[in-house]
Amino acid sequence: MPIGLSCPLPLAQYPKITMAHGGGGRLMHMLIDELFTTAFGKTEEHDGATLEVEGGRIAITTDSFVVKPLFFPGGNIGTLAVNGTVNDLAACGAVPKALTAGFILEEGLPTETLWRVVLSMAAAAEVVGVPIVTGDTKVIEHRDGNGLFINTTGLGMVADGVSIAAGRARPGDRVLINGSIAAHGVAVMSVREGLKFESDLKSDCAPLAEMVQRLLTAVGPTAVHVLRDPTRGGVATTLCEISCAAHCCVVIHEETVPVADGAMGACEILGLDPLYVANEGKMLIIVAPDSADAALATLRAHPDGKDAAIIGEVVESPQGRVIGRNTFGGERVLDMHSGEQLPRIC
Amino acid sequence: MPIGLSCPLPLAQYPKITMAHGGGGRLMHMLIDELFTTAFGKTEEHDGATLEVEGGRIAITTDSFVVKPLFFPGGNIGTLAVNGTVNDLAACGAVPKALTAGFILEEGLPTETLWRVVLSMAAAAEVVGVPIVTGDTKVIEHRDGNGLFINTTGLGMVADGVSIAAGRARPGDRVLINGSIAAHGVAVMSVREGLKFESDLKSDCAPLAEMVQRLLTAVGPTAVHVLRDPTRGGVATTLCEISCAAHCCVVIHEETVPVADGAMGACEILGLDPLYVANEGKMLIIVAPDSADAALATLRAHPDGKDAAIIGEVVESPQGRVIGRNTFGGERVLDMHSGEQLPRIC
Repeated sequence: MPIGLSCPLPLAQYPKITMAHGGGGRLMHMLIDELFTTAFGKTEEHDGATLEVEGGRIAITTDSFVVKPLFFPGGNIGTLAVNGTVNDLAACGAVPKALTAGFILEEGLPTETLWRVVLSMAAAAEVVGVPIVTGDTKVIEHRDGNGLFINTTGLGMVADGVSIAAGRARPGDRVLINGSIAAHGVAVMSVREGLKFESDLKSDCAPLAEMVQRLLTAVGPTAVHVLRDPTRGGVATTLCEISCAAHCCVVIHEETVPVADGAMGACEILGLDPLYVANEGKMLIIVAPDSADAALATLRAHPDGKDAAIIGEVVESPQGRVIGRNTFGGERVLDMHSGEQLPRIC
Repeated sequence: MPIGLSCPLPLAQYPKITMAHGGGGRLMHMLIDELFTTAFGKTEEHDGATLEVEGGRIAITTDSFVVKPLFFPGGNIGTLAVNGTVNDLAACGAVPKALTAGFILEEGLPTETLWRVVLSMAAAAEVVGVPIVTGDTKVIEHRDGNGLFINTTGLGMVADGVSIAAGRARPGDRVLINGSIAAHGVAVMSVREGLKFESDLKSDCAPLAEMVQRLLTAVGPTAVHVLRDPTRGGVATTLCEISCAAHCCVVIHEETVPVADGAMGACEILGLDPLYVANEGKMLIIVAPDSADAALATLRAHPDGKDAAIIGEVVESPQGRVIGRNTFGGERVLDMHSGEQLPRIC
């Protein structure tokens, strides 16, 4: 996939996506054959792909992306669609093997915008070393001329002995995170219409499958109990899911949670709690207590985990609760909010 | 999945989908835990699923569905999403093993509408015997209060010896179809705003994987060269794809192509050619010449193939062309149109 390649469709002739680009005919085939195939490589068939696998456990995960705006500091909907799905595979303890890409385009979307997104996806997939094997394109009527939704489904293989599940958190387990939080949410908000504020913050959007595999190798697959990427709803909401699934309590030492430079100030301006802000390059990792130090060292030795920290532990009760504890011994319940503070963050 | 079950969410309290239903918090979890889990069964984790497979060839296919209106005679967007993806797996010669479901909901969508669609998906998946193993929900801003897009990705296993590809069509091969065409397109058009005309026609929306497996068993996997479901763009466009991929010509004897009762009249009113109208329960099957009669008999013995017909053959040239021949010896080139006659058919 040649990075920086200009759009292979003649933009003067096709400056914008039309309904016919989703109609199954010549224009859709041109879009597939020239634009998608140039970026993603030739797939064997239009409507499906096949791949050889060894017997074992397959992980499958799917995500639709509707982030607004399409481009934000540190990424765009395309990098998000690839990395988000790769990270969901990573959270299953899986090695990514294949991605699919389903596009819903809005009539009037600039063809150049689509090309930039598709090229970003191809580059992101190349970083992970995972092919985009098949896809689909639909077009819906004009809305604001900037609509693009992407669904990516990921397929991965889970090695023997790996058994990751939210329900596997046990009292005594330690909670780690691979770096500072709240960058993605604040970066997207910083370019939202009507929400312009000064920030140099970039989204943390990154693929974490390789880091997770290194961790599983270093501490042994059975010592890693839970992996979960805290996207929508942030760290607090994800830990609520885990405490509910495992019928236990998670205690977070709030001062140990690294927050991205600049995110705290932005959160104060916007009235947000960084623990509830979306991340796209973070993994919550719950490990057996005697593996916590080894896990931390492994994470810190990896570029995507250099700011990793142990941020809390699992205790017996109150079941289904997440408690935030501060340096002065104060406590608060980190409950699940009804929704995200700002919609369309991913 | 209990068919006819009433919506498990309290409709008085949550009559419509809100942005918070896609926000990752409490309302989204309620939607997943009560609505989706009731219909699809419990998945092991929110963000992914794992399944054991034997070694071999996996087929993977993805499709987004944006059909408008959501409900039409003979089906709805949910049945379409399941059967469409099952049929793409069938077109790979695969036995479906798992589906994923990604929902993009519009703020304001009646919760009851979502429930009816989800229940239809569960019922359609049950007919095929394929589980919906994982999913995703996003919400976008209000548009016309009736927006719902579904992406389904399908995973299947391809048996040894099966080698289906558009490029495998060979001169001499026969072209079969499992029944009458144009029902889906006309059924959807019949309820389109501004296009109301009398028609009792129902969409042919149906899952074809089981029929295809029976065919592969009956005539042997190597005799079946191409399988392709003629959806958007219809039979003519799909055959154009095949003739291009295989560098050959497909000749269709137009009078042998079965057209759904009532579809011809509707097509005349609307100025459409049934050969270009979308189908959702049809498969184009290209087989070795000496297997054509056995293939036809096998199809006709199946409920979804009782009106099957041999409709043409593959010849050497002109390469990349599809020729329609009539009873009087007249010929026309069936070229690919630029788009679908009417958008958002699937």
